[in-house]
Amino acid sequence: MRVAVLCGGVGAARLLRGLVPLVDGPDLTAIVNVGDDLELHGLHVSPDLDTITYTLAEAVSAERGWGLEGETWQAMDMVKRYGGVDWFGLGDRDLGTHLFRTHRLGQGATLHEATAEIVAAWDLDLHVLPVTNDRLRTLVTTVDEGEITFQEYFVRRQHDVAVTSVRFELAEGLLPAPGVLDALAQADVIVVAPSNPVVSIDPVLVVPGVTELLRSRRDDVVAVSPIIGGKALKGPADRLLVELGRESTAVGVAEWYREIIGTLVVDDVDASLTADIEAHGVTCVVAPTIMSDLKKATALGQVVLNASASR
Amino acid sequence: MRVAVLCGGVGAARLLRGLVPLVDGPDLTAIVNVGDDLELHGLHVSPDLDTITYTLAEAVSAERGWGLEGETWQAMDMVKRYGGVDWFGLGDRDLGTHLFRTHRLGQGATLHEATAEIVAAWDLDLHVLPVTNDRLRTLVTTVDEGEITFQEYFVRRQHDVAVTSVRFELAEGLLPAPGVLDALAQADVIVVAPSNPVVSIDPVLVVPGVTELLRSRRDDVVAVSPIIGGKALKGPADRLLVELGRESTAVGVAEWYREIIGTLVVDDVDASLTADIEAHGVTCVVAPTIMSDLKKATALGQVVLNASASR
Repeated sequence: MRVAVLCGGVGAARLLRGLVPLVDGPDLTAIVNVGDDLELHGLHVSPDLDTITYTLAEAVSAERGWGLEGETWQAMDMVKRYGGVDWFGLGDRDLGTHLFRTHRLGQGATLHEATAEIVAAWDLDLHVLPVTNDRLRTLVTTVDEGEITFQEYFVRRQHDVAVTSVRFELAEGLLPAPGVLDALAQADVIVVAPSNPVVSIDPVLVVPGVTELLRSRRDDVVAVSPIIGGKALKGPADRLLVELGRESTAVGVAEWYREIIGTLVVDDVDASLTADIEAHGVTCVVAPTIMSDLKKATALGQVVLNASASR
Repeated sequence: MRVAVLCGGVGAARLLRGLVPLVDGPDLTAIVNVGDDLELHGLHVSPDLDTITYTLAEAVSAERGWGLEGETWQAMDMVKRYGGVDWFGLGDRDLGTHLFRTHRLGQGATLHEATAEIVAAWDLDLHVLPVTNDRLRTLVTTVDEGEITFQEYFVRRQHDVAVTSVRFELAEGLLPAPGVLDALAQADVIVVAPSNPVVSIDPVLVVPGVTELLRSRRDDVVAVSPIIGGKALKGPADRLLVELGRESTAVGVAEWYREIIGTLVVDDVDASLTADIEAHGVTCVVAPTIMSDLKKATALGQVVLNASASR
C-alpha cells in the first residue's frame, strides 16, 4: 500500500511515526509544508521538515516536541550577548542541520536533494519531500503589526495576537518538488495530517497541481481533524479558524477541507458531530486521535488506512 | 600616545594584549587582516578579527590559541553526521559570533560596523578594524592542488604542502575601512605585529593607501619579527619565506619589510643578526619576544613603544 501524507510539523510527525510500522518506507511519502521556512543569520531553516526528520529518527526533544534531544544553546547565548536576533531559538545540534542544508543549497543543490541527504543520514527510508523547492512564504496579517512572517507570528508573538488574514507568497513560476505529484497520483491513500489547516496544510495546497490532484482523488483522501473538542492540541488552529470566519470544531475542519477530502477522522469526544460533518459530504470516522505515544499513533494510523480501504 | 597595529591572528592578538595595559583603549587601533576570511555554510567567518577579540576579552582558548574557552562542538558533530564540510571546525560558542556577524552583514551593516558591535559586546574599548569592508581573499598556489584559498591551505592542508606563490584577490574598487588610514596617519607609533609577513601582513599592505602611508612614515613603524632562531613560533611563515625565495631569518623579515619599517625588534637569540638587519637600513632592537604570558607580552609592548620613541 502506497501512502502520501500532507504534512505540517508536530502533529504530522506524530502521525507519520504511527504510519511507519504499517507501511514500507519506500511506499510512504511525506509532502511537507515549507511556508514557515525562514532565513535566519544567513541560514536556511526548515522547521517542519526538521521536526518530521527528528521525530521519525527518535531524536526529537520529547519535552518540546520539536528540535533535538540533548540540545545545548551555546551559540544562542552568544547571539544574545551581541544583542542579535534571539526570538527564534536554534540549538547547537540543530544548527548543524541548518549549516549543512545552507551549504548544500549554496552549492546549487535543491531543497529536496538536501532534505533527502539529511533524512538518509538519520537512517530513515521513507520519502520526505518539501512540497516545493521554490520560495514559498506564509504571511500573516495581524491587527497590531500589519503583515508579518509566519515565524514572527508563531514564535516571536507566540501566536498571541489577532489575525485578519493569511496569504502565501509564491516565487514566480513556483513548481512542486520532483516526486510530489507522482506520490499523490500513485498513492493508495492520501492523508491530510492533523496539522493546522490554515497555516500548515493550505501552503501545501497552494502549490500548483496539488489541490487539483486531491480534488480528482477526493474519495481516497483522509484527513485527521486537528481540532478536538473545539480546541487545537497545540498551536493556533482553533483561534485562526474563528478569526477567519469559520467554526473552531471538527465541523469547521470538514467545511475547510470539503472539496479535497472524502473522509475526516475525528476524536471520540467529537462523535456527536458526525451528522454535521457528513452534511458537508464528508464521511466521518470516529476514533481516539491523541497520539501521546507510539502505540496510540500506530492505532490512529491504522484507522486512517482502514478509513480509506473501507470506502 | 596613539598606536596603530597591523595585525594577523594569534601573534598579533598576544602583542595587543601586551599593549592594552600601556595605551589608552581609544588610542589603540588594531588594523586586521581579512584575507583569510571565508564563507562557510552560508556564514561569514573572520578568523583573525575573532582571535583578536577573544584574546583581548580573555575568552580565547588557552590550549588552542584561537576560538573560545569552554567551547563545545555539537553543531560540527551534526555536520559530520551529514557528511558536510568539516575540515574547518566551528565551535558552538564561536558560531554565535558568525551568526551575529552574518545577520548584520545581511542587514546591510559593513564588516567594520559588525566588528565594532562584537568588540563592544566583549567590553573592549580599543578600536578593532578590518583593514577593508570589501572582499579581499588570500589565494595560495600549491604544487599539488594548484590555487586554493588560504584556509584550505592553512587548515585543510595544515600548511603541509609546498607553495609556489601567494596572491590577493581584491574586490573592484576595494577601499580601506573607515578609520584605517586615519589611525595610521595619526598614530605616534605604527606597529607591525609578529604575524606571518606573507599571508597575514601582506594582505593588509595591499589595501590602497596602507603601504603608501607606511612608506611616508617609515621612521615611526616598528615591526616585531615573527621568525625566532630561523623558525616561526606557529604557522608556516618560515617555510613560506623560503618557498618564496627569501631567507627564513629575522634578516629575511627585515628585507621583506625594509621599505615600510624603520625598526625591527628581534628575539635575544637573534642578537647576532643585528648588523645584517641594519645593512637593510632597518634599526635592530634586541629583546625577548616570546609572549608566553601577559607580563612578557607587556614587556615586549614596552620595548616596541620605546623603540619608536627613542629614534
